[in-house]
Order: sequence, then C-alpha cells, then structure tokens
Amino acid sequence: MSLTFVLGGARSGKSRHAEELVERLAPPWTYIATAEAHDAEMAERIALHRSRRAEDWHTLDAPHDLATALAGLPADRPVLVDCLTLWLTNRMLAGADVAAESAALAAALGACKAPLVVVSNEVGLGIVPDNALARRFRDAQGRLNQMVAEKADRVIFMVAGLPMRVKG
Amino acid sequence: MSLTFVLGGARSGKSRHAEELVERLAPPWTYIATAEAHDAEMAERIALHRSRRAEDWHTLDAPHDLATALAGLPADRPVLVDCLTLWLTNRMLAGADVAAESAALAAALGACKAPLVVVSNEVGLGIVPDNALARRFRDAQGRLNQMVAEKADRVIFMVAGLPMRVKG
Amino acid sequence: MSLTFVLGGARSGKSRHAEELVERLAPPWTYIATAEAHDAEMAERIALHRSRRAEDWHTLDAPHDLATALAGLPADRPVLVDCLTLWLTNRMLAGADVAAESAALAAALGACKAPLVVVSNEVGLGIVPDNALARRFRDAQGRLNQMVAEKADRVIFMVAGLPMRVKG
Repeated sequence: MSLTFVLGGARSGKSRHAEELVERLAPPWTYIATAEAHDAEMAERIALHRSRRAEDWHTLDAPHDLATALAGLPADRPVLVDCLTLWLTNRMLAGADVAAESAALAAALGACKAPLVVVSNEVGLGIVPDNALARRFRDAQGRLNQMVAEKADRVIFMVAGLPMRVKG
Repeated sequence: MSLTFVLGGARSGKSRHAEELVERLAPPWTYIATAEAHDAEMAERIALHRSRRAEDWHTLDAPHDLATALAGLPADRPVLVDCLTLWLTNRMLAGADVAAESAALAAALGACKAPLVVVSNEVGLGIVPDNALARRFRDAQGRLNQMVAEKADRVIFMVAGLPMRVKG
Repeated sequence: MSLTFVLGGARSGKSRHAEELVERLAPPWTYIATAEAHDAEMAERIALHRSRRAEDWHTLDAPHDLATALAGLPADRPVLVDCLTLWLTNRMLAGADVAAESAALAAALGACKAPLVVVSNEVGLGIVPDNALARRFRDAQGRLNQMVAEKADRVIFMVAGLPMRVKG
C-alpha cells in the first residue's frame, strides 16, 4: 500500500518515530524484528525496544529471511520492520551474497501490500573505517538504503529525534 | 526565553553559526565554555575559538557543572553554550551518571530565562565504533541531543557551514 | 558560470546524482577524475565509475593539480569534479600544506567559467577517530567543504540517493 523509510544515525529516535507512524494507523500492528542477540549489549537493547511497545503489537522474528516474512503478511495490517541494518549484519556475518539479497529485499518491500514503515541506519558519514569488513558493510548498507529509498513513497531522515522530510 | 539548538559534525561551522546567531542580539553576550584542555591539540582548538570572539563576549568556564552555571544567568543577556559534546566527554570521563545528568541538563536548558544558543555534535552517522566506551558515548550523545532538541524552539543541522532548519 | 556542490556520505549516490546534473546540460561533458589507484579496491571503484559513463564524457585525470586543470577549461563545456575527498587524500599523503591548497582550490572553483558540479564527502558525523591523521583529515575535509559551499550557487546533501537542498 505505502512504504515509509525512516533513516538516521544511532540514537536518533528512528525506532520511536517509526512506531509512532505505525500507531497512527488502526491496530493490530505487526512488528518484524531483525535483531539477533549476539551478546549481552544486544540482548539489553532488544529488551528495551520490546518493553516500549504496547500489547497491540504482534512481534515476528525475521533476522535472516525477511523477504519471506514480508511475503506472508496480510494486506490490511500495518507493519514495522526494525531494522535493515541488523538484517544486513546478520546476512553478511552468515556469508550471504548481500548485493543480490539486498536487491531482492528492496523488491519485496516494494511489492508488499501492507502499509509498511521500515527503519535503517545511515552509516556512511564518518571517516573511512580502518578494517575492510567495516568498509564492505558501509558500502552494502549505503546501496541497500538507496534501493529502498527509491521504492519508498516517503523517506525521512532523523536528526536528534526530529524527522526531516527527504522524499514524499 | 528561547532555546536554539545547533547540531552538526566536526568542522561543520557549528560554533561560528551559533556565535552569529547570538551576535544578532544586543550585547553583552555570555560564552559558556565547556572545553577542558586535556592535551595540546585541545588547547590549540580552545585558543582558536577564543581568538575569534570579539570583546563584547564574557567567557565563563563550566566544563562540569553546566546546570549550575545556567541557573545563575541573568535573564536579559544572550548566552552561547559551546558545546554539549565536550561537557558530556568531561562527565563521562569523570565517571558520572550521564543519563541522569543529561536529563537534568536538558531540564536546566529548558528552564533558562536567557536567550540561549546551544551547540552539540552529531556523532551517530558513522559505522559502529570498535570500542565499548565509544559506543557508550555515541549512545549518550544521541540521547542527550534528542532531549535538548525536544526542549528547543529551533533546531538547526549544519552541513558544510550552512544551516538546515530541522525544527522551528 | 555556476557551481553546484554535491555532498554526502559513502554510497549515498553522490557521483550518480552529480553525473545526472551535468548530463542535463548539452554535451560534450568533461569529467575531472581525482582518484589514484593506491590498491586493488580503489582500482575496482575507479573502473566501476568509468564503466557507468557514456562516450559523451571526456575524462581528465587531476589527482594532484586540480586548480591548474580547472584553469585550463573552456568556458562552454560542463564539468564534473569527482571528488574533492580523493584530491584531499592525495595532497595530504603527499605532505602538502592542505589548508593553503584548499583555499586556493576553493578560489579556483569559484573563478571557473565553466558550469561545474563538484562532489565531496561529508566525513565528520561519526565518533572522533582514534588516530591523529584521521582527525586531521576530518578537520581538513570539513574546512574545505565549508569553503566550497560558501562559493557554491547550489549545495545538495545526499541521503540514500536522494538530494536535499541545503543552499540555492
């Protein structure tokens, strides 16, 4: 139906803003979580995010097969995908062909019938990272963000908790 | 009276723009400096910033107790706080409870009667830092920026010396 | 004639957008490349960029003496400079006085008679880098970007392949 893409840095209020956008629509809402708790720091972040959400939210875990999860959604239920950065991390660590999978995911997001709000990180505005894996991740994230932004009806860039309209 | 929040990256012209905003108001102006010269590089930056300011500026150092400094200000004198990133660095290195202190500082900024321009860095738009302290700082800075932006009447994001209006 | 400055992060679609801006004008177009292939990763990026361009493009390499290359241009031919970040890297690694050269380059860009589109990276929105050279580069890049943005008629900040108008 409509695809809103919420981009921003760490602690920029992306998730909160995306949740508010979904909650403007009629419940129930589906939350597609891509987080995998690799360590205690991650587990804490996941718990914090979950504790913030009300009971009208139905959570679905899709740390790897996000495109399939999207394909199985009912058309009338608003969906939040949080977030593409964790999905990309999971796929890269699993040794996947992230270029091909990113293109497939962008297509799946564009084809989805449900009202969608998708969260992702902008990670390319610092100095070039020292290690090659970080550089590869930065490139892959930037390309994925461009592909999703192209499909999106609305693109929002978060600055200090405030939305800046980039598209739509 | 009014709170303007000027956010941006390193060398984005934040301080200069913030000074110009204050200098549009009637002097004398108060400059609250949060810098502590931990090394020669910092000392040089502080000296450079000071040398740029005219004599209508009265400088007040508050590298740690910024909330108290704000509480003691006269209501009719424009104030520049430069910057929250150095304050947060100082407090974190001192082992403070930065979450609690950030909330208290945001409240103090919101309650301040003087016309205020506050400078801070956006630090969350690069790749996830390798070390845990840098990640903690990045999170704390992002949360502080969100809290101050919420209180602010006007929020400006600097890009290459140019202001982008985010709020107000 | 007119100077457009396209700023953005890694993989933000800067080069593609800048090329599209130039290709709206009548050909032939001049592409001033500042890349030096220090390693295989760079060589691959350069080849990728070149393969994207049509034959109406005439390429000119100026990894170091960019100001001289600009001075020798005909006034009626649109020019793309891609990018200032690689130029700055080359000059810094060569031990140049980058502050002086940045000022001279900004002046040369401002004085150029040809319609110009100039690409550069924003690198200051992450956490402070660990090593001193990266910090010096970040500062030099920020200052150069400010100088060019001041001369520019139009400044564009790219987010996920989408242009945000900052000036003009």
